[in-house]
Order: sequence, then C-alpha cells, then structure tokens
Amino acid sequence: MEYRTYSPLEVRRLIRKGEITTPTAGMCGGYAQANLVILPKELAYDFLLFAQRNPKACPILEVMDEGERMVRYMAGDGDIATDLPKYRVYEYGELTGEYTDIEKFWRPDFISFLIGCSFSFEEELLEANITVRHIEEQCNVPMYMTNIPCEKAGIFSGNVVVSMRPIPFKDVPRAVSVTAGMPKVHGAPIHIGSPEVIGIKRIDRPDFGDPVTIKEDEIPVFWPCGVTPQAALMASRPPFAITHAPGHMFITDVKNVELKF
Amino acid sequence: MEYRTYSPLEVRRLIRKGEITTPTAGMCGGYAQANLVILPKELAYDFLLFAQRNPKACPILEVMDEGERMVRYMAGDGDIATDLPKYRVYEYGELTGEYTDIEKFWRPDFISFLIGCSFSFEEELLEANITVRHIEEQCNVPMYMTNIPCEKAGIFSGNVVVSMRPIPFKDVPRAVSVTAGMPKVHGAPIHIGSPEVIGIKRIDRPDFGDPVTIKEDEIPVFWPCGVTPQAALMASRPPFAITHAPGHMFITDVKNVELKF
Repeated sequence: MEYRTYSPLEVRRLIRKGEITTPTAGMCGGYAQANLVILPKELAYDFLLFAQRNPKACPILEVMDEGERMVRYMAGDGDIATDLPKYRVYEYGELTGEYTDIEKFWRPDFISFLIGCSFSFEEELLEANITVRHIEEQCNVPMYMTNIPCEKAGIFSGNVVVSMRPIPFKDVPRAVSVTAGMPKVHGAPIHIGSPEVIGIKRIDRPDFGDPVTIKEDEIPVFWPCGVTPQAALMASRPPFAITHAPGHMFITDVKNVELKF
Repeated sequence: MEYRTYSPLEVRRLIRKGEITTPTAGMCGGYAQANLVILPKELAYDFLLFAQRNPKACPILEVMDEGERMVRYMAGDGDIATDLPKYRVYEYGELTGEYTDIEKFWRPDFISFLIGCSFSFEEELLEANITVRHIEEQCNVPMYMTNIPCEKAGIFSGNVVVSMRPIPFKDVPRAVSVTAGMPKVHGAPIHIGSPEVIGIKRIDRPDFGDPVTIKEDEIPVFWPCGVTPQAALMASRPPFAITHAPGHMFITDVKNVELKF
C-alpha cells in the first residue's frame, strides 16, 4: 500500500504541501491515526464532557489549547490546520465545504480534539490473525445507528453509532480480548450477535459505509464508532465546526501498541 | 470495622442525618469511595481538561451537571451537598472551614467532580494477598511531592503527588498487574524503587500522611495520588472551591470490581 513504510512526519509534510489529498488508510503502518473535531471554545466544555461520559464512543487522545494549531502530545511538528488531507466545514450542522487545509478559517477561539480511531485496533486484530472483512473486501467499514442512547452532556445527545465486523465464532473471545486491551481506541465491542437487539433492522443496509459479507461460521460484532460524537455534534447544529473528511485522518507519531497503556 | 457490612445507601443516609461524621475508610466493604471537587462553572473546563491530560493522577468517575446536587451515575439517591461526612471550603486557595454539609454554600453554577480513590485498588491488593503497610500499621498512607510535572491545563499546573506502599520484591509484578487493571482508580505505579529519582529526599518524612515501615525485603512503590488535582487546584487560588475533607469520602453504589471495565 502507498506510503505504508513512510514515517508519519514524512507523510504529514507531503499532506501539508498538498501532495497527498487521499484517504490515509494504510499509510504509516503501525502508527495511530486520529479523528478530528474543531469547535469554538464556547462549545468545548460540553463536548469534553460528552467524551468523558461516552468514553468508548469518543475516546479523546488529545485536547489542544485554545487557538493552538501545533499538536503537542500526539505528534511533533504537526499543524492541525494543514496536516490532514481533507477537512469538512459545517455551519449550523450543514456541510458547507471540503478543503485540503483550513488556514483561512482559523480562529483564536478554536479548540481541536483528536479522537481515537478503529484503524488502530484493526491492525491489532490482523496481527492476531483475526479477519477484518471490509479490509479483505476493500471497502469502507459498515456503520449503523443503534437504539442505545449516549449519555447526554450539555447540548450534546444522540444514540451510539456502531461499526460492525463479522468475526468467526471461534475467534470472538480473542477479538473481544484484543480490543478490550485498547480502551483509547474504542475498546471492547458493545454488542455481539442479533443486530435487532440494538435496533438494527437491516444488517445488509448500513447507515454509513458499505455492506460486507457475513459468512455462515461468523457472527456480527459491533464496536462503538467515532461517528457517534460527530453525529451528536451535528445534531446540535453548532454555528461552526470543522472535522476531518471521512477516512482523511491525522496521522500521529504514536504507535498503536502505545495506546494499550 | 464499623459500618463495613452496611450498604452504601444506608451509610449515606446516616451521614445525611449527621449520625456519621468520621472518616469513611473501611465502610461498605467492596464499594468504591470517591474524592470530591466542587468548582464554579467558569473553572470547570480547565479542571476537566487537567483531568483529561493527567488521567492517572486525576481519574474522573463522574462529572455532575451544572447546579445538580444528586449524583447520577455513581449512586442512587446520593446528595453531593449532604452525603459526605466532612467537607472543606476554600477561598482563594485558603481553607476557610470544615463542615458536615454544604447546603448553605450551594450555588446554581457549581459543578461537582467525583474522582477515583486508591481505597479501591488497596482492596484488590489485599484480595491478592499483597500487603498494604499503612492499613497494617493503622495510619494514613504516606504521600510525597515529586519532581514529575503534571501536564498543564489552563490555569492548573503543578507536580504529581504520589502515595507510597512498600511491596515485597516477590510481589511487585503482581502489584503492578493488579493496579494496572484498574485505570479508573489511578492504575499502575508511576515509579518503583529509588525515591530520589522522582525528587523524594526523605522517604521517612512524607509531605502528607504518615511514615510507614519499609522492611528489608521490600521496595517502595509509588502510585499517582488524588491529592495531585487538589494541590494543582489550590495552587491556582480559585475564588471558591469545595472538596471532601481528607479521608471523608463519598461512598458510591459501584463495586470496586466494576471499576476494572
């Protein structure tokens, strides 16, 4: 895969120069990638509280200081306004545009949140010889709205969004164990088996992403998904917010294995 | 020990009636006890961010809604203004009084933080037949200022405060493992052995609590301590803050074992 063996710094530099504008899946093997949410300070407390109350759906890796563009903990020389390949800008909950950098939108009251991503635990599953179907089938992971309410925090509420991976019955305990060991990137599954129990009517019709094959010896396993905080955020129609474009993540200098501790 | 077999609700009722005003150590065996910090809303973001950046020293169990007195997640029928046996009120960082309830101080902009406490992992250590010296010697755990800086967050900064338990060499790996499994109550040690490496000059003269015996076959093991956020808080001299009085904790309805997940 392209850029798999590049260092995170090398890839961030290429992104900053505008030479990479594609999704980041598979780049910089072994390194954690992060979701991004940028909000004005006035919404930051409610969002941080939402994350605190819903840590499995919204595992915060770093909260940047007010107005700060340079990442402090998760990367060296990482500019949050230029180093992701694609951003989405929202006004009052409506997508108003996609951009390859957001320098022109930057405000001194912006607070940036880096949020753990399931890419990290998928790499661990593969290491453990557990199949990850959407990688096999080269499509996006299937994601579903559930009937499981998030814990409300200030203006933010909504239901948990889950991602689904079909796992062979024999591998389910190991899949639970491997992901439970990584609470900073969603952790253990939230549900195993019968989709209807958590309000999913059509497993073949995900609300986001692509459907994948579920084989006879497999059971669908559901993990809390990083789309949850984005959905809760947009439902509250904030005057202004910026996120990464789906799949176009911030590549950190932190290895996936470091997220176990 | 008195009240060991009482339920948390029973003990909270007795505290609310003013019939218990003593330290809570040993009460309601098996149930988690929590540190308390109450701050006006204007300081809450910085404090929550401090906790996010220093999760081992400041593991948040619950953040209550603005002005809310009734605990939502960690207990049923728990009134944060009456159900701790003793509170401390601080103005501009100075202790101005100790009270058995704080109803008369209550303000609609107060936000209450319940924070994990090492009582929870000590019970697990004892279950694993690992000695806890200050319990044996019936005194307070020794605590020390270190040279390890906390991650700064807004107005809050300071060094990590640690608690120390002498552990027999043969039990150290198990002690690390047992406590690492409880990240919501400080988790694994931050340092093992040579106190001077983390800036502690006199192990026999703790900055807080009482000195304990270290035997020949033992090594001092240091855990991040809940005094850390209190020290950082007070150093910033907030106009108004309320905490529990040392040892006079909030007894939750959540069992220590539940804090493993």
